[in-house]
Amino acid sequence: MRRMIPTSLSGKFQGVISMNALRCYLSEFISTFFFVLAAVGSVMASRKLMAGDVTGPFSVLIPAIANAFALSSSVYISWNVSGGHVNPAVTFGMAVAGRISVPTAMFYWTSQMIASVMACLVLKVTVVEQHVPIYKIAGEMTGFGASVLEGVLAFVLVYTVFTANDPRRGVPLAVGPIFIGFVAGANVLAAGPFSGGSMNPACAFGSAMVYGSFKNQAVYWVGPLLGGATAALVYDNVVVPAEDERGSSTGEAIGV
Amino acid sequence: MRRMIPTSLSGKFQGVISMNALRCYLSEFISTFFFVLAAVGSVMASRKLMAGDVTGPFSVLIPAIANAFALSSSVYISWNVSGGHVNPAVTFGMAVAGRISVPTAMFYWTSQMIASVMACLVLKVTVVEQHVPIYKIAGEMTGFGASVLEGVLAFVLVYTVFTANDPRRGVPLAVGPIFIGFVAGANVLAAGPFSGGSMNPACAFGSAMVYGSFKNQAVYWVGPLLGGATAALVYDNVVVPAEDERGSSTGEAIGV
Amino acid sequence: MRRMIPTSLSGKFQGVISMNALRCYLSEFISTFFFVLAAVGSVMASRKLMAGDVTGPFSVLIPAIANAFALSSSVYISWNVSGGHVNPAVTFGMAVAGRISVPTAMFYWTSQMIASVMACLVLKVTVVEQHVPIYKIAGEMTGFGASVLEGVLAFVLVYTVFTANDPRRGVPLAVGPIFIGFVAGANVLAAGPFSGGSMNPACAFGSAMVYGSFKNQAVYWVGPLLGGATAALVYDNVVVPAEDERGSSTGEAIGV
Amino acid sequence: MRRMIPTSLSGKFQGVISMNALRCYLSEFISTFFFVLAAVGSVMASRKLMAGDVTGPFSVLIPAIANAFALSSSVYISWNVSGGHVNPAVTFGMAVAGRISVPTAMFYWTSQMIASVMACLVLKVTVVEQHVPIYKIAGEMTGFGASVLEGVLAFVLVYTVFTANDPRRGVPLAVGPIFIGFVAGANVLAAGPFSGGSMNPACAFGSAMVYGSFKNQAVYWVGPLLGGATAALVYDNVVVPAEDERGSSTGEAIGV
Repeated sequence: MRRMIPTSLSGKFQGVISMNALRCYLSEFISTFFFVLAAVGSVMASRKLMAGDVTGPFSVLIPAIANAFALSSSVYISWNVSGGHVNPAVTFGMAVAGRISVPTAMFYWTSQMIASVMACLVLKVTVVEQHVPIYKIAGEMTGFGASVLEGVLAFVLVYTVFTANDPRRGVPLAVGPIFIGFVAGANVLAAGPFSGGSMNPACAFGSAMVYGSFKNQAVYWVGPLLGGATAALVYDNVVVPAEDERGSSTGEAIGV
Repeated sequence: MRRMIPTSLSGKFQGVISMNALRCYLSEFISTFFFVLAAVGSVMASRKLMAGDVTGPFSVLIPAIANAFALSSSVYISWNVSGGHVNPAVTFGMAVAGRISVPTAMFYWTSQMIASVMACLVLKVTVVEQHVPIYKIAGEMTGFGASVLEGVLAFVLVYTVFTANDPRRGVPLAVGPIFIGFVAGANVLAAGPFSGGSMNPACAFGSAMVYGSFKNQAVYWVGPLLGGATAALVYDNVVVPAEDERGSSTGEAIGV
Repeated sequence: MRRMIPTSLSGKFQGVISMNALRCYLSEFISTFFFVLAAVGSVMASRKLMAGDVTGPFSVLIPAIANAFALSSSVYISWNVSGGHVNPAVTFGMAVAGRISVPTAMFYWTSQMIASVMACLVLKVTVVEQHVPIYKIAGEMTGFGASVLEGVLAFVLVYTVFTANDPRRGVPLAVGPIFIGFVAGANVLAAGPFSGGSMNPACAFGSAMVYGSFKNQAVYWVGPLLGGATAALVYDNVVVPAEDERGSSTGEAIGV
Repeated sequence: MRRMIPTSLSGKFQGVISMNALRCYLSEFISTFFFVLAAVGSVMASRKLMAGDVTGPFSVLIPAIANAFALSSSVYISWNVSGGHVNPAVTFGMAVAGRISVPTAMFYWTSQMIASVMACLVLKVTVVEQHVPIYKIAGEMTGFGASVLEGVLAFVLVYTVFTANDPRRGVPLAVGPIFIGFVAGANVLAAGPFSGGSMNPACAFGSAMVYGSFKNQAVYWVGPLLGGATAALVYDNVVVPAEDERGSSTGEAIGV
């Protein structure tokens, strides 16, 4: 078995507090902590390097490469423990697709939120000079347009996660995290100066919490969650339906 | 069987409208939509970040990295469904090599074109401030020179796709999309400021359609299609001819 | 057997001077030499390219990409010989986890130190114009804050190394070095302008030795060693405890 | 059998003109052509983008990323045909280690040279505005210092190629080209502004031939060839000697 979690889900309630489940939450915590540290830290680094210029090309290029590298690695390190979600939109998609239970998803979300807040706190405390940055949408964009863009980006991200988790592909699953990171990098390069290119509600939540402003926060939740859920449903029901493998319509058979 | 498409091709006409075939077209649509969103979006992002400067180094560096990341990922997510073409020049090469039927190729092209137009429309609608950019050739270059350059770039890209699809290599096929993306990134870095570094007729078509100008469009079709077809013929007939595997001269045996 | 070292450890003392052990030390030497050459050389390159500007964005972007590329490769080339440590913090974590013996760890450290000093000497001698740079912490940071940040970065790095070495993952181990390099790249992008983003005591030691100043050297030892040891203990005892595989609680069974 | 070449070498003279051998030369030609096109083209692109500035940071960053992407891909596409040398220093190392015969090495070199010259000619003809650039050493460096630096860089590159070709590693060989490309990228970032970061005599030869000046050409031949040969000898005789596998001391058994 590739993941520990299916076992822990056999008994729903006791599953979410078993040792294996706790390991999954810790694993999500570590991965999300690292990802947010790199994603938010690289924005702070680019600001320091540009002496406060927050709109130049480096303000997107440096975070984009950091996102690609850090998401690849953070997904990889929890890949065979918790499934390497690192992102509430991925967890939401997995729950919508029935691959993890709703209680498990809640605990994953909680781990991701706490990890994000703590990563931002570490940055705030060690880097004394700067405020933690928050995601913003460009002045000329509407909140709706930004939500649509973030939703489309999250669709692609979650769709790639589902692809990388599909054992029917007959290909080494361990390369999957590379592509997941590449999607994040490409999305930041394409949408960073417009909608912020977050795709990750936990990341937006942690920085907003530590900064102390939840302006536009809805953009980074509604779009990604809808996009993630849509990706999950399209992947499982339309593009690669489970009947390709005889009689295995449950999520566990797909090897979540 | 790695791909669904060979099965769907057994009966030519009914093949192109079977459920498996429709899944392939949808898969190509999703992949091409994502690739064009990142390729064209990153050009728009670089322009916004540079306050309209369309010729500085970031105008090539940011799109080049976005191309590498996005093409890797978009090929990966449709790899085991539709073959991960994402590019009409690749589809053309596959058809010339007899690995897919001509009707299938037409449907792939249609999916890719619609996806590209829709990705550019999403960018135009959400990013209200800017026009969608189109590919251009440098002022001092001739259209013929640009076609030659785009053709050479497409040759390398399609040749790499054929390599990545070759099961006789005895190597994990899932890493192939990484190299396909790297080729795109290297090509944009080398030819971006000269011929535009498109290599992808769908990408050039979508942005031209939404922008409303088809100037130099021929450059992005003639070169890549000829280059792609040449790569397909050279790979299959000269460098790695099928007789290396006893009696398996048909495309299907090569596992397209 | 994946590594040669377990065999060489069967007899503790004679193990550390066997032919296999000497090959491991040489392998660590070559890998660390290359990594330090690229990490320190890229800082010198960025300074020359920016005509002495040591605080602009390229001063972090160029070394970050060089770190990612060079650490991936240098871990890869000693992966199946010495385990691909390249970093005293990794070696320390491996020793704390009982995967290598303390005498072996001492010889690894020695190889890494000598390699780092020699790489910096080669740079100093061939690049006549510049001094070798040393890692610095930002003026507004405290030494304690920098240590914490470097420790957190090293935690992630060593945790990733342990993940990549875990054969229970059932995934191709050879892709692990890619993610190890990506972690280094992301960390430099996030922390470069604040704590320096060294994570590697050998690298900090070699450049300080050749430059002739050990100011703040403690920051680059205390943080990474504590972070590395913590990562080793958390990975082996909490997240992926050895009892998952029946009766195999020793490091050798895990295939160090 | 992974490569075709060992078979073609069974009869020495007729081997070098067999169909398989001709395919290897063509494969080397295509790979080297693509690599030089990207390596030299990206230098020209960076110059155009910076309006002639040949010493700014982009003059190294853009070619470095292009080198990493293009060398990875070009090694990959000839990996299972000709071995993916792409570089006379690699071919020289392979010949010194006895893994290919001297006549074969001569034909490989010829293919690589012709490919490099032709790639530079294509760039010169299509990009009408600029001269083809040549590799240069920094004004303050000695030719000897530059040779040493280029030799060290080539040592690492060829050592990585030998690692990637070693089937005893029990790891998927197809990821090897990624690391080979990463080494090239790191080396350019570290040494680009000092010795040029060529590591590849074919690349230096082609651009010098088309430009019409062989100044400092020796630097790009002596260093890399010596470095490559040393790497081959160190790898095969010291770090990973063939007696690890019972009775298989010939190169062919190692699966070149």
